Amino acid sequence: MLKNKTFAVIGGDLRQVHLAGLLAADDGYNVLAVGFDREIELASDVVRCKSAAEAVQKAGCVILPLPFTVDGVTVNAPYARSPVPLEEVWGAADAATLITGGKLTEKVWDISRRHGFKLVDYYDREELEILNTIPTAEGAIQIAMEELPITIHGARCLVMGYGRVAKTLCRDLAALGAQVTACARKYADLAWIKALGYQAVHISALHGIIGSFDIVFNTVPAVILTEAVLSDIRKDCLVIDLASKPGGVDFETAGHLGLKTVWALSLPGKVAPITSGVIIKDTILNILAEEG
Amino acid sequence: MLKNKTFAVIGGDLRQVHLAGLLAADDGYNVLAVGFDREIELASDVVRCKSAAEAVQKAGCVILPLPFTVDGVTVNAPYARSPVPLEEVWGAADAATLITGGKLTEKVWDISRRHGFKLVDYYDREELEILNTIPTAEGAIQIAMEELPITIHGARCLVMGYGRVAKTLCRDLAALGAQVTACARKYADLAWIKALGYQAVHISALHGIIGSFDIVFNTVPAVILTEAVLSDIRKDCLVIDLASKPGGVDFETAGHLGLKTVWALSLPGKVAPITSGVIIKDTILNILAEEG
Amino acid sequence: MLKNKTFAVIGGDLRQVHLAGLLAADDGYNVLAVGFDREIELASDVVRCKSAAEAVQKAGCVILPLPFTVDGVTVNAPYARSPVPLEEVWGAADAATLITGGKLTEKVWDISRRHGFKLVDYYDREELEILNTIPTAEGAIQIAMEELPITIHGARCLVMGYGRVAKTLCRDLAALGAQVTACARKYADLAWIKALGYQAVHISALHGIIGSFDIVFNTVPAVILTEAVLSDIRKDCLVIDLASKPGGVDFETAGHLGLKTVWALSLPGKVAPITSGVIIKDTILNILAEEG
Amino acid sequence: MLKNKTFAVIGGDLRQVHLAGLLAADDGYNVLAVGFDREIELASDVVRCKSAAEAVQKAGCVILPLPFTVDGVTVNAPYARSPVPLEEVWGAADAATLITGGKLTEKVWDISRRHGFKLVDYYDREELEILNTIPTAEGAIQIAMEELPITIHGARCLVMGYGRVAKTLCRDLAALGAQVTACARKYADLAWIKALGYQAVHISALHGIIGSFDIVFNTVPAVILTEAVLSDIRKDCLVIDLASKPGGVDFETAGHLGLKTVWALSLPGKVAPITSGVIIKDTILNILAEEG
Repeated sequence: MLKNKTFAVIGGDLRQVHLAGLLAADDGYNVLAVGFDREIELASDVVRCKSAAEAVQKAGCVILPLPFTVDGVTVNAPYARSPVPLEEVWGAADAATLITGGKLTEKVWDISRRHGFKLVDYYDREELEILNTIPTAEGAIQIAMEELPITIHGARCLVMGYGRVAKTLCRDLAALGAQVTACARKYADLAWIKALGYQAVHISALHGIIGSFDIVFNTVPAVILTEAVLSDIRKDCLVIDLASKPGGVDFETAGHLGLKTVWALSLPGKVAPITSGVIIKDTILNILAEEG
Repeated sequence: MLKNKTFAVIGGDLRQVHLAGLLAADDGYNVLAVGFDREIELASDVVRCKSAAEAVQKAGCVILPLPFTVDGVTVNAPYARSPVPLEEVWGAADAATLITGGKLTEKVWDISRRHGFKLVDYYDREELEILNTIPTAEGAIQIAMEELPITIHGARCLVMGYGRVAKTLCRDLAALGAQVTACARKYADLAWIKALGYQAVHISALHGIIGSFDIVFNTVPAVILTEAVLSDIRKDCLVIDLASKPGGVDFETAGHLGLKTVWALSLPGKVAPITSGVIIKDTILNILAEEG
Repeated sequence: MLKNKTFAVIGGDLRQVHLAGLLAADDGYNVLAVGFDREIELASDVVRCKSAAEAVQKAGCVILPLPFTVDGVTVNAPYARSPVPLEEVWGAADAATLITGGKLTEKVWDISRRHGFKLVDYYDREELEILNTIPTAEGAIQIAMEELPITIHGARCLVMGYGRVAKTLCRDLAALGAQVTACARKYADLAWIKALGYQAVHISALHGIIGSFDIVFNTVPAVILTEAVLSDIRKDCLVIDLASKPGGVDFETAGHLGLKTVWALSLPGKVAPITSGVIIKDTILNILAEEG
Repeated sequence: MLKNKTFAVIGGDLRQVHLAGLLAADDGYNVLAVGFDREIELASDVVRCKSAAEAVQKAGCVILPLPFTVDGVTVNAPYARSPVPLEEVWGAADAATLITGGKLTEKVWDISRRHGFKLVDYYDREELEILNTIPTAEGAIQIAMEELPITIHGARCLVMGYGRVAKTLCRDLAALGAQVTACARKYADLAWIKALGYQAVHISALHGIIGSFDIVFNTVPAVILTEAVLSDIRKDCLVIDLASKPGGVDFETAGHLGLKTVWALSLPGKVAPITSGVIIKDTILNILAEEG
């Protein structure tokens, strides 16, 4: 565990606001916050700091948002009145500082090696990815509820791919009474799909059956919903793509065909910022436990 | 079963549009439709009729919407270009006609006795009420997903009352991973709540625990969320009232207390009109089967 | 609530042994026990009484077993060294005594009116019946696991009737991954069956489909598995009858046909005596709460 | 796929009997069987062969049982009247033969290289291991039902380890209403445990909590239930060890402590031979599909 039990939470959205409050509520931690100015209420035991430099110097662990930057120059701090330069953060860190953030770039890793501070990307942690499947699946279901004139109960749902998000999504859909089919390539995945009570379809057999679904959820980050596949989908079917870029849908063709598609990215922060804050906080505590 | 296998679907919203299409797709039925003018596409085998009188005369079974009227004078027909007078419907019916509609009034029952046509209120049917709990529960969950910054998974949910809607709502919430507490007055209800794995709380013990919930769903049609109860609820708790008038919440007091409340009525037709159409259609076929 | 907070637990099997211990562990109750001699260990704070008369005289509430008698003359006390005459119990009771037992007969009700003691049959309580569906369903599943060379997962199961036991049984079977079909007569029951995700079949349509099941569970206390129905069942199908007398199976014909049948009665006390003791205890506390 | 569509099923128990029947029922396959003499009925389209040599020569695919041998010299054929020497099988195989069996030894791999036949161990296949978790979990639950006087519903269950068997076991226990705690070492596993709604406990925190469980299921193949841990377990707790040798329990110490322990190995073949036969058959067809 950390020797210096002060956290500096620098930038971010409601997830980081909540995370700061949660850490401050834990025994034995001090929490400094920078970059939350605009009408943002912080928990009473979170201490606002004037500058990032000051916060970083005082802190044993610096927490940057997810993603840590949008422009590559400043911290991603939508609630900050004035921009927080990344250089200010790196410059104030030393060998006793652990900096953690989401979606860190190779350039930041170079800087950490030069400046000598410890660096961890919490977005790389498997437990964060796993727990994030929960808000992702709920967000996808919320979209389906909003867009379709039918209930999830009884809806014929196809989940493409059987990675982490698909596992939680299948579970939630089936729990609500949907008829869930999941397609995958590996026999081991197909075995789990069967074991959990869903219909299992090898991805090579997709073509013949895709016309029978009310909702298609894609989780595979490769364009597998090509023109050939899309043209077999029913016109009243909703296609929700949960795959990160490039996504799994040929959206242009889907548009020409008049299919309703939604490309839903980064759902956890959007649909459940507080839950997401909890997940990031728990992950960071795991990191600290491992760092000893 | 009906001798005259022609249905007249008169008025209504997307539920009735879909119902007409479903009946027409069944073997052996003819379907006439009145009151769907504005940009409404009907299934190709549904025949538009010029007047309600003509449709009623030709039909063995006349299907009115839910509710059958809003103003007491015309059929509830939001997609009709010109109003359809109820008198026209009653006037064209005779002893061979079965008229079914939703939320029929005492006045209509009087008319049916005078005119001699058979009358059934499909909204009184228990199976419709049961199946409607599915879109109601999903609609309530959709509202919770939209309004709250947390996931349903892990949310501490209180369901007040343990009638039909509550049963399905508890099931769906628990299925998504919520921590579900249900409160009721009868020991038999509390036994089912325990048997199904939810926390059971006698309604008299509510006061001491209501402050620990993230979401409160009320299904009891009596104002049980009075000032005394409301003032114990957390400020970040969402209160969703699913009870029909007068509802279960003292909304004025809730407003003064700054509580977030949603009074969600008639969810099935709003969130899942097609599923609702299927439910009405299945119920009407049950009615016909029983009428012999 | 009881004024005299002493219980007399007279006779019964492991359920009553456990019940006595549970009551004694609750604050403010004294527990006397009669009829547990043979190698039966009682909780340390349960006091053994020499005679039933003495125990009844000292107690505010007398608890007889389920069923309270087998021979009509003595208390059903399999662990008693010498028989406990019912007359001894009745004779020692007065207007301040509440006697509760299971499956009380009309004769006992007459006696209570003559002697002036209060009488309640806890076996008549709905909450007991509901909670008993849990060990009943688990017991039925245990039998199916023991008798069949297939897993419950994937097994095609038919549940006949949709009363309390059927509800819990369907839930447990589906939870384990079985393909569950339930058949009922009432449209409301069929609606619940559909809402909960099982296949719903009207009992009149049973004949055509009964040949497709691996396990048939009957819960209807009327012989509906007649020769005509039985002869359509597959030879490797297991028939488990959970209905009380006369049962739902023509066992003689089933035998001639070579069908494997199990008539499983009174499962709670057999498969889960401790859980059953908890259920009886909770029910008795409910009775006392209501008696004021 | 196989050119020579004849299978030779040689030896084994009811699993292989059923597997032979299933393959014969599939279109386009011939099935020869050797080693099923004693009162064993085979499906009518399975052809009994006099010698293993003849069957192997005629077959494109030879199926040995699981495990393929017990004594290292003959095929594991409990229903054979006379032993079937392994040498006879190897001797009749050539480059066009695919032999598949369970728990093949290094020695057999050497022989296959020398004789030039293709060899696959179906017991190594992940999909078989996954699908086998279903009968394993049901078998473990059956043991718990048989051994304990309480229901699974409400039972406080600890599952140690979070591999394949544990995943299915947790699911089944929770589905039946148990209170499930799972312990693991990896944060990713703990995240899944939480996501699926069970209590997650890091294995290092086990000591403080193990005394609160009614049933402990071990799935970790290392002796983690040492004296120190065992002495904290309640005397009425049941310990079921599902781990292969050396098992996870210090059985000697458990005996001294008077704990009830069951070491349950090879459950699929014991509790659900027909389901196991289906699983082996499906796995073999996957192998053939991959072999092209």
